[in-house]
Amino acid sequence: MDLETHDMLLDALPGLYEKIYLSQSNRPEGMGFYDLVVSDIHGIRPKELVDAKKAGNKIIGAFCVYVPEEIVLALDAILVGLCGGTEFSMPAAEEYLPRNLCALIKSSLGFKVQKTCAYYQVCDLIIGETTCEGKKKMFEILEEHTPMYVIQMPPKPDQANSKEFWLQEMKNLIVKLEEITGNELTAEKLKEGIRLVNEKRTALQRIAETRKEHPPPISGKDALLVTQVAFYDDVARATQKATELYEELQDRIKNGVSGVDPSAKRIMISGTPMAIPNWKMHDIVETSGGVVVIEENCTGARYYSKIMDVDSLPDDLNELITALADRYLDLDCACFTPNDPRLENILKYAEEFKVDGVIYYCLQNCLTYSIEVYKAERALKEKGIPFLKIETDYGTEDVGQLYTRVEAFIEMLK
Amino acid sequence: MDLETHDMLLDALPGLYEKIYLSQSNRPEGMGFYDLVVSDIHGIRPKELVDAKKAGNKIIGAFCVYVPEEIVLALDAILVGLCGGTEFSMPAAEEYLPRNLCALIKSSLGFKVQKTCAYYQVCDLIIGETTCEGKKKMFEILEEHTPMYVIQMPPKPDQANSKEFWLQEMKNLIVKLEEITGNELTAEKLKEGIRLVNEKRTALQRIAETRKEHPPPISGKDALLVTQVAFYDDVARATQKATELYEELQDRIKNGVSGVDPSAKRIMISGTPMAIPNWKMHDIVETSGGVVVIEENCTGARYYSKIMDVDSLPDDLNELITALADRYLDLDCACFTPNDPRLENILKYAEEFKVDGVIYYCLQNCLTYSIEVYKAERALKEKGIPFLKIETDYGTEDVGQLYTRVEAFIEMLK
Repeated sequence: MDLETHDMLLDALPGLYEKIYLSQSNRPEGMGFYDLVVSDIHGIRPKELVDAKKAGNKIIGAFCVYVPEEIVLALDAILVGLCGGTEFSMPAAEEYLPRNLCALIKSSLGFKVQKTCAYYQVCDLIIGETTCEGKKKMFEILEEHTPMYVIQMPPKPDQANSKEFWLQEMKNLIVKLEEITGNELTAEKLKEGIRLVNEKRTALQRIAETRKEHPPPISGKDALLVTQVAFYDDVARATQKATELYEELQDRIKNGVSGVDPSAKRIMISGTPMAIPNWKMHDIVETSGGVVVIEENCTGARYYSKIMDVDSLPDDLNELITALADRYLDLDCACFTPNDPRLENILKYAEEFKVDGVIYYCLQNCLTYSIEVYKAERALKEKGIPFLKIETDYGTEDVGQLYTRVEAFIEMLK
Repeated sequence: MDLETHDMLLDALPGLYEKIYLSQSNRPEGMGFYDLVVSDIHGIRPKELVDAKKAGNKIIGAFCVYVPEEIVLALDAILVGLCGGTEFSMPAAEEYLPRNLCALIKSSLGFKVQKTCAYYQVCDLIIGETTCEGKKKMFEILEEHTPMYVIQMPPKPDQANSKEFWLQEMKNLIVKLEEITGNELTAEKLKEGIRLVNEKRTALQRIAETRKEHPPPISGKDALLVTQVAFYDDVARATQKATELYEELQDRIKNGVSGVDPSAKRIMISGTPMAIPNWKMHDIVETSGGVVVIEENCTGARYYSKIMDVDSLPDDLNELITALADRYLDLDCACFTPNDPRLENILKYAEEFKVDGVIYYCLQNCLTYSIEVYKAERALKEKGIPFLKIETDYGTEDVGQLYTRVEAFIEMLK
């Protein structure tokens, strides 16, 4: 760790968090846990991971919703999400990468080469994936700094050979993880892994359900943070805390309690993922007369959707792995072609969450999501749903301009 | 066809060609054929294709060296390269695509939606591939304008399941092409297709070999044009004309004839492909005291390398398809990860072609080639080979600045 640089990073976080999060009124009490997590972001959890390492558990890093946490858990290892959400770590990455690469990729590599992220430092292995070519090629540089393993995505998920290919990728990953952990995957252990991750997803999905109310009992930025934390928190605790929060949210609905102004316009944020501390877009929306009611992205619905039916899982390990592989290939990432299921989901969420408008959020130079704008905009306009595309990065230079655009957009919503 | 817009496009070409090509002194006589081809670029060849269609042959378009011409020919169809190399067709594409996408992708879609390319209009089917995500996602829009079929690339070519996956992609493509052509693939026909394409590659490779001489008997831009034309010309004629040119180049070497100044510095251009009429970089280099002696790209070595051994081909169709699939997977595109073979080839070409310096040419927003810069530069510097990265597009705005940089680079070469 580069402690001096690391301290500079952590010094900036409390001010940002206070401004964006603690300034909200009438938040759910359950958010206290998440406030604590952020206030000690490189403290409690990294310490737990170091302790787990000492106790013989392996720590596996990942950047993407396609890395199967179920398998990692089943081998008594721990999965931590590593995506970078801050400009702070980008200059270090630009010594290796072209400048015009997406902020998330640069921030991610930056943390490792700069040695300022406790989570990277504790990992025994980082699992990459070939979802986007920016990451795919960045991993070739990252692997010079850390042990890495890359899983391949088939571009067209519907074909028979794609399914076979992906299943084999899962099996190859299992071989690698068995080697790293020294443990052997069993059907029983994998079922337990599936159960644990299912419970986490179910808890997050239930919170999402409460946001269908108007006004929602929780702000969009609070809901976003819950999912962001779930990416790297202990799976049982993430489930427990999200469940407690869900129960509180139900009470709030029953008692008509909410911190959200009933006149707020209901916004769907669709597009690229938002890693901690990237709360920029939600903050702009929610201080411009809007409330984010659903995130159609990897730090939202794509993370907690596709719950598996635990009661009807097969007992055979091979069949279990196949069922799990199918679950992942059924996600609607823009890395796939064609990707009509994502369009269908955007329209479905727009209806279910009664959104007044969609803000399509794209990190600059994210080609796949950026090209999908064309069809998404067309499909939404056909349904009469207002649409705004925002392309931005982690910097603050464009915040004034973004406020102007978002305020104008929200103002014109009926 | 939009003939009015099309005429505007064609009006610009002769002036450009005269300035870049016809201004060269002491060119090989064999270039007369290529001058004719460019002067009638939307005339003779499209007419031939239309006639072939009338005679029952299908016309298949493609954008990439991974689309197996051998199979297309074996089914009595004709493969034409469709990559767009002009700014002219880009604004039309920007109605569908984000602006910050590579010029080649925008130019390609633009030709179709603008209806200004005779080659697109004549195609019965366009075969795309998932080499880069910009193209992969652009094809989703293109397919609304033309019949399309997309073949999948495995990201990690070395793995057993990747080879299997790719082989199945070839087999799926054969099914599709059999359906389109109404013909059935036989071992005999496929062998003949392999022989024809091999001969073309061999002829181009021989021309490349002559460029090892100093001064080379042919300029870089002339050699580039020969490969560019081979992408869409009749395969037998492309072979014949390249062979005639090769024979003339041998005579020129024997007689010490060359249009290239012996004081010219020997430059390798490495990076992204150059589609007609993208001669920008070669022109700058060759009017700045340099001569391009090798193109390490898809409109150069990657197109004509990996000749198959025709004498030892298997007789079994399945084995033949496997041998062909292996040949393609052995190419070193930046879409693969890791891609060390490309690094090795860059170093090999630098030595074999006795290059004084490498210009790494990247179209803006080409992520894969742009990220590979880091390792390429490092590997070349370790060998003491000067390196210059140029990032540009099809516009002329930056030509002055590029001249300044290229002249300074060539001047400092020993």
